[in-house]
Amino acid sequence: MSLLTVGSVAFDAIETPFGKTDKIIGGAGTYIALASSFFKVEQKIVSVVGEDFPQSMLDQLSSLNVNLDGLQIKQGEKTFFWSGKYHNDMNSRDTLVTELNVLEHFDPIIPESYQGVDYLMLGNLSPQVQSTVIERLTKRPKLVAMDTMNFWMDIAMDDLKKTISMVDVLIINDEEARQLSGEYSLVKASKVIRALGPKYLIIKKGEHGALLFHNDNLFYAPALPLEEVFDPTGAGDTFAGGFMGYLASTDDISFDNMKRAIIHGSALASFCCEKFGTERLTTITNEDMSKRVEEFVSLANFDIVREIV
Amino acid sequence: MSLLTVGSVAFDAIETPFGKTDKIIGGAGTYIALASSFFKVEQKIVSVVGEDFPQSMLDQLSSLNVNLDGLQIKQGEKTFFWSGKYHNDMNSRDTLVTELNVLEHFDPIIPESYQGVDYLMLGNLSPQVQSTVIERLTKRPKLVAMDTMNFWMDIAMDDLKKTISMVDVLIINDEEARQLSGEYSLVKASKVIRALGPKYLIIKKGEHGALLFHNDNLFYAPALPLEEVFDPTGAGDTFAGGFMGYLASTDDISFDNMKRAIIHGSALASFCCEKFGTERLTTITNEDMSKRVEEFVSLANFDIVREIV
Repeated sequence: MSLLTVGSVAFDAIETPFGKTDKIIGGAGTYIALASSFFKVEQKIVSVVGEDFPQSMLDQLSSLNVNLDGLQIKQGEKTFFWSGKYHNDMNSRDTLVTELNVLEHFDPIIPESYQGVDYLMLGNLSPQVQSTVIERLTKRPKLVAMDTMNFWMDIAMDDLKKTISMVDVLIINDEEARQLSGEYSLVKASKVIRALGPKYLIIKKGEHGALLFHNDNLFYAPALPLEEVFDPTGAGDTFAGGFMGYLASTDDISFDNMKRAIIHGSALASFCCEKFGTERLTTITNEDMSKRVEEFVSLANFDIVREIV
Repeated sequence: MSLLTVGSVAFDAIETPFGKTDKIIGGAGTYIALASSFFKVEQKIVSVVGEDFPQSMLDQLSSLNVNLDGLQIKQGEKTFFWSGKYHNDMNSRDTLVTELNVLEHFDPIIPESYQGVDYLMLGNLSPQVQSTVIERLTKRPKLVAMDTMNFWMDIAMDDLKKTISMVDVLIINDEEARQLSGEYSLVKASKVIRALGPKYLIIKKGEHGALLFHNDNLFYAPALPLEEVFDPTGAGDTFAGGFMGYLASTDDISFDNMKRAIIHGSALASFCCEKFGTERLTTITNEDMSKRVEEFVSLANFDIVREIV
């Protein structure tokens, strides 16, 4: 199966209580593609970088079998840059710098070779760009998932709601779910949000795991408790990439398979937090992932012996 | 098997965004006994009330087969009273009134008929009272669990650490685990705390579930996402009571059985939040509990199909 990722390929500079980085490779599209490359899928990406973006990183994405036909390189322009600093609890961060650069006028061009793609993952970008991608696909993919952020809720709620109405799966965090719905209870929030269109809603709760809502089905995926969260940057995108990579590789969108997909996404996201940026994701193997998934099985698994009660 | 609960039997007055109560029956000992009464255990309680405590509530505890030989009724004195107000997010509360009354000079007397008890649950009380109970039992129970609060960490840390060193299972919430250990990461905190003595540590995370640590084993129990948390008062005690009631009734302290015990405790705690005080717990049946436990199975359960990945 094929998976199209739409998302930023960018530079990040990150500061955490454990240290700080220079400009390193980041961006939602990068993390999603890295995570989904752990699965047997035909990967395609729609994104944009400036002439300052290193060829070595593009080569690395190519080596992971990511088709780069839809990645535009803008001569004379600079790559999107984000810089942030995490607080001591690692659960909140301040944005220090946001330079939109090539993203300011990003027109997501879909190469002819991408048409007919099976699965679509829309990473966090302006809802306008996200909906344009859906409109430019001549055939509706089997499943369209999107991520977004509170930023778009603040400045473009109408556009955002329109885009949300066009997707099958919305992936947001708990704060965003509360802001989008105006409800504090996540159960109530999930009803309001699914009434906007998406049949599936995933609410990410960071160290507290993730919830999947679909009709009357509810799944609570744990997060792996970590000794140290070194750098959570990209963990949400890695989660989404693992989720969609698993779904596309198994080509099964049943609720039970979505549970498995979430566990794989969570396993990859837990690795992502162990080093700065993409460092950990680029060094682990499929065997590492499988072992981590087994840790999730033992972490969450229990059986109920009914007759004793 | 027999289970001895030590904990307050008290009056509460509660205010939440949904309303407020007059003086209603509360106290850790009450919630623990109510929750453990869902299991086939010989229940005993050590506690103290004033002459103002209604006989009807004592009769209710008796009707649940709770042996009240160790419940002292102090003539001329008043029952412990606590009043609190929950904030809009229901995750934090202010204490409005605390009248210690009979608890101020509480001497936990163990009736001879209680000696030889199999399981011991020490509800939140002064660590001095908790350790006195352990010392007064002529035979060490099979498993001793205790709950405590940040209050005792603030004013009696040395006494508290001494008591913690005497128990097998410590049950506290995430904030308390961080305060007790000085570590933000719950994985690190669990190591520091278990080094104080307890072989088992349960960290309650409210709406985010609970973690069980033992040696290298780790279990993440989800909490059932609720449409509305009406009143969380007593949910932690109900959890502990369900946990110990299940363990005592099955007489099995293996890690796998502790997982089941936590799920039963979580199921009962989820009911507790649905109405004010003990109201919901006193109206549900064992069948209701079993159905709720099944909801936890479907909430947390997943299987991994290895060959597809």
